[in-house]
Amino acid sequence: MAGAQNATAPVPPAGAPPTAARAPLTLADFGSFHVGGRDYVVAGQPVKEVRFSANGPLTRVDPNGTFVIGGMYAQYTVPAPQRGRLPLLMWHGGGLTGVTWETTPDGREGWQHFFLRRGWPVYVSDAVERGRAGWTMLPEATGGQPVFLTEDNPYERFRIGDGPGSRARGTTLPGNQFPADPVNYRNFMRQNVPRFTTTDELTLDAYLALLDRVGPSVVMVHSQAGLFGCRAAQERPELVKALVLAEPAAAGDMAKVAAVKGIPMLVLYGDYIDGDARWRTLRANGMQFFEAVRAAGGSVDVVSLPERGIRGNSHMMMMDHNSDQVAGVVQDWLAARGLWA
Amino acid sequence: MAGAQNATAPVPPAGAPPTAARAPLTLADFGSFHVGGRDYVVAGQPVKEVRFSANGPLTRVDPNGTFVIGGMYAQYTVPAPQRGRLPLLMWHGGGLTGVTWETTPDGREGWQHFFLRRGWPVYVSDAVERGRAGWTMLPEATGGQPVFLTEDNPYERFRIGDGPGSRARGTTLPGNQFPADPVNYRNFMRQNVPRFTTTDELTLDAYLALLDRVGPSVVMVHSQAGLFGCRAAQERPELVKALVLAEPAAAGDMAKVAAVKGIPMLVLYGDYIDGDARWRTLRANGMQFFEAVRAAGGSVDVVSLPERGIRGNSHMMMMDHNSDQVAGVVQDWLAARGLWA
Repeated sequence: MAGAQNATAPVPPAGAPPTAARAPLTLADFGSFHVGGRDYVVAGQPVKEVRFSANGPLTRVDPNGTFVIGGMYAQYTVPAPQRGRLPLLMWHGGGLTGVTWETTPDGREGWQHFFLRRGWPVYVSDAVERGRAGWTMLPEATGGQPVFLTEDNPYERFRIGDGPGSRARGTTLPGNQFPADPVNYRNFMRQNVPRFTTTDELTLDAYLALLDRVGPSVVMVHSQAGLFGCRAAQERPELVKALVLAEPAAAGDMAKVAAVKGIPMLVLYGDYIDGDARWRTLRANGMQFFEAVRAAGGSVDVVSLPERGIRGNSHMMMMDHNSDQVAGVVQDWLAARGLWA
Repeated sequence: MAGAQNATAPVPPAGAPPTAARAPLTLADFGSFHVGGRDYVVAGQPVKEVRFSANGPLTRVDPNGTFVIGGMYAQYTVPAPQRGRLPLLMWHGGGLTGVTWETTPDGREGWQHFFLRRGWPVYVSDAVERGRAGWTMLPEATGGQPVFLTEDNPYERFRIGDGPGSRARGTTLPGNQFPADPVNYRNFMRQNVPRFTTTDELTLDAYLALLDRVGPSVVMVHSQAGLFGCRAAQERPELVKALVLAEPAAAGDMAKVAAVKGIPMLVLYGDYIDGDARWRTLRANGMQFFEAVRAAGGSVDVVSLPERGIRGNSHMMMMDHNSDQVAGVVQDWLAARGLWA
């Protein structure tokens, strides 16, 4: 694979971009901004003195005062010419950041590239307390201590390896599509960030602020963000014009399914779910919601990739070797709904 | 100011990019990657059960095992045509991320845009345990609890406001250039992230890994990264072809000044340092190093912006209203050194 990093690939030449040269892309605009968040006041704590740099002076840091919590980061790239009729918002999953949608761990173009090259304005965000979302580690803002993952954990839990001990063995599920060799898998692990499990409400609020700022959009979510995509669509049905869910780990509020009956939804599941008790449960939970949306008159297309002959996809389908093929399923679906010119 | 966000600006129209339309820019390549880091093994800790999503199953999380710590994120954009002779690496300061160099808090194009538009391949990185650098919150990786800042703190400490209580008063130093109105200042505070004060060695290692991957470069640093820029130049003098330091809060190893005598350096200081005891100390510490480099035969140009008639710059000169003017000082200096065609 041209330009991919692997254990035997040569070091890129000095000064060269780290991946193989691509076709040029013209941007009409690009930049970043923050949205959402609120003030949080701390009082009654002792003042600290901190030395910020090795030989610098001791600096008084008063932990009392007003902090911003719950903000969110978004980076936008608007291609020229534009063919997507709406901005495409990409919302990452738990323990990860917007990097999910960028260059794949083995150095190929990711879904951000794929949809930009097809003329979609793409907004890649970092959710609350993650990535470039500014944040504070106040327990009141985060709800406590975070979870973070060993190198073995996603290898086994994201349907890459074939069970406990598979990373050490270097074995995968048959036909696995994730770039699971040690160098590229490590590139993926270097993307993982601590995950707080108690910040869902703050995060949903920030996504609503993002929608309010950007306006009518197509929302694409992965894993944990299934919850945020469905809930945001329920709160802002006039702004979410289509919802694409890549292996949602959670879905929306069962009491509000009618709110989203006008929003076309595409749900994608990868391979090997039937053989994995945890993923069967997550899929069954999701399907309960999607069936309820259908019963309320909504339109939900559920695609099991292996049933379409697309085999071996892990939970990280946007990083898998066939990521372009999976993105093509999404692109065709969006085009068929008149969202692409 | 066109497209700027402020308290009275209208909400951007639905679907429009959040800032005013810019001149198009053609990229030859863009993407992201991670570098650096190492394995860290945890043993003997109890297994936890975590519910990752509201209705999801309890999932076993074994905190024992191998973690990646100390990695770093970089996002690169390579313009076409290219006029910078080398990649330009932008290294942010403490408590912040690569966002420092992107769109300013009031929605103008930042230094990433400025140098891209002049044909420089730009690499914006997020340092260790910050932003999109994957990380773990293991005390062994971070050295303990982080510092994070109240909304008052940078307003007073970064030479924006005129002393204690200035944010509440809404008063600034005379002629202050920072977009200090409440809405835009809040946009800046939403960029702030927790800062560990004990990760300098891990961070330096990751910057060396970045240099080793990208090859010969111009390195531009801000504040805390003064330390990393100078130390990295001392460790990799063959890869750092020029060093631009915007208000370095720390500099290099006094025992190794000869190593960098062949690297041209530009040091920029903003306004109101003479009246601020803390900044006088930081500048004096820096000047000790730069004088020693000069004494060893090196070339260091120190520019006090107010002495050039450029007044009112805060510590965040790349976000100040006159950020393009300050960037122009850097651009002219780089061009005069034959680094731009």
